[in-house]
Amino acid sequence: MNNSNTSKEFVWESSVRGYELDNQGIVNNANYLHYFNNARLLCLNSIGINWHTWHKKGYDLVLVKASLEFKKPLKEFDKFKVVSTFKLSSKLKISFEQKIYNSSTNTLSAVANTISTCITSKTGKPVYHQELYAAILNHL
Amino acid sequence: MNNSNTSKEFVWESSVRGYELDNQGIVNNANYLHYFNNARLLCLNSIGINWHTWHKKGYDLVLVKASLEFKKPLKEFDKFKVVSTFKLSSKLKISFEQKIYNSSTNTLSAVANTISTCITSKTGKPVYHQELYAAILNHL
Amino acid sequence: MNNSNTSKEFVWESSVRGYELDNQGIVNNANYLHYFNNARLLCLNSIGINWHTWHKKGYDLVLVKASLEFKKPLKEFDKFKVVSTFKLSSKLKISFEQKIYNSSTNTLSAVANTISTCITSKTGKPVYHQELYAAILNHL
Amino acid sequence: MNNSNTSKEFVWESSVRGYELDNQGIVNNANYLHYFNNARLLCLNSIGINWHTWHKKGYDLVLVKASLEFKKPLKEFDKFKVVSTFKLSSKLKISFEQKIYNSSTNTLSAVANTISTCITSKTGKPVYHQELYAAILNHL
Repeated sequence: MNNSNTSKEFVWESSVRGYELDNQGIVNNANYLHYFNNARLLCLNSIGINWHTWHKKGYDLVLVKASLEFKKPLKEFDKFKVVSTFKLSSKLKISFEQKIYNSSTNTLSAVANTISTCITSKTGKPVYHQELYAAILNHL
Repeated sequence: MNNSNTSKEFVWESSVRGYELDNQGIVNNANYLHYFNNARLLCLNSIGINWHTWHKKGYDLVLVKASLEFKKPLKEFDKFKVVSTFKLSSKLKISFEQKIYNSSTNTLSAVANTISTCITSKTGKPVYHQELYAAILNHL
Repeated sequence: MNNSNTSKEFVWESSVRGYELDNQGIVNNANYLHYFNNARLLCLNSIGINWHTWHKKGYDLVLVKASLEFKKPLKEFDKFKVVSTFKLSSKLKISFEQKIYNSSTNTLSAVANTISTCITSKTGKPVYHQELYAAILNHL
Repeated sequence: MNNSNTSKEFVWESSVRGYELDNQGIVNNANYLHYFNNARLLCLNSIGINWHTWHKKGYDLVLVKASLEFKKPLKEFDKFKVVSTFKLSSKLKISFEQKIYNSSTNTLSAVANTISTCITSKTGKPVYHQELYAAILNHL
């Protein structure tokens, strides 16, 4: 616990792959959602929450809302980093604030504010899970 | 022109493809952005604005902002339809309102509100293009 | 059973989506593998073999080999059809022969010869499953 | 020139991203084609052949054939490396031999043998380009 209500920054670095460009020569929008998604998975994994394991137990993490801003497009082979922090917006909702930067120029490429929730695979309904809640709280 | 400030509804129908499911057995989030994206391209194409042609002329349509809500996940082989309308939020900005419905149950699956703008490929800066502006205005 | 050793042709029709183009303005190669993959899933589903259901029972269908030929690239919004037939190349292997045609011009776009096998999710080893084998045999 | 007829090994390392898993919990097949594709682009880029630049000059590199073998599936967050070598199979054809290994276990995950050719964007026909041919030959 770091006595705030926001997690420490988690950084994931990678590079644009050639096939992620669209016919305008820039990274296709949906790929930013992919980058943000993978960064969230890695971020939670880094604090011991692996969603593949949770899925097998019957729980899934799903996106409820996403607000995206596209600033400066990434291009072929660009190195980028995704900086993520999260907090609890309610007992049922985890909100992430994420930014993608071009690693070479340090310019901001895209911003995402998302809200995810834990559902049971069976009903698809949001569910409060004590263990998950505690695990997240422990990193705020 | 239909004397309103919003275009007529444009509907694109398709089906979930097997590879679009993630390891939770539901359509991965980024694919909704793909569906919305393709629906916008088809919608504009239906009124004579083909972005592949515009790209060759040196202009690109890029997403500036997107606000997404995920309601009820689509699953394997589900038929869906994307209903799109657009309007001008300024001389430089086209805003789309889009909804994805499961075609069988007619339940709402996802909602997108997006703002796109036309840029020149060379500078990456937004540009007002009279022909494009007129073409869009003509359908409002 | 149709008294041959090859299944009847299964046809799946769809259209190229804008985001499937790469920065050369043609459908990116990996998408053909996606098209072929979805056509195989639909083809097997049409004879009562749903792999999502089999996955839940602990079995997966995986690709062992694929031989692909790329003839004439598909482009933006092209309608295409995937024609698929299958046969058993052994008790453990299903081989598919698949062709993608541009629906408008009827020109051949890509060809795939693939071999898939059923594995148990736990071990990852190929497994002979009597019910699956019979179901497939029933359509040859 | 290294006096053989095969290029030196080019290695690209990366990690599986969460969204690349399918609903069987393993990397979806088409993603291996993506990995191979990106490794080829990076490999050629490393010897001064950038296909984005060539595309702007009116030339594209397209896949003609691909033969793929799938050995051991990659899973969530696995680190992998793609080892690529190329040679000329004719004045018009570049053939790549590529292998993907799980970096942690060093087990072979997938193998690709592909043939690519250079076409003119206008006609789509293969074309012999002296500069390209010389650039490739220089690294064999």
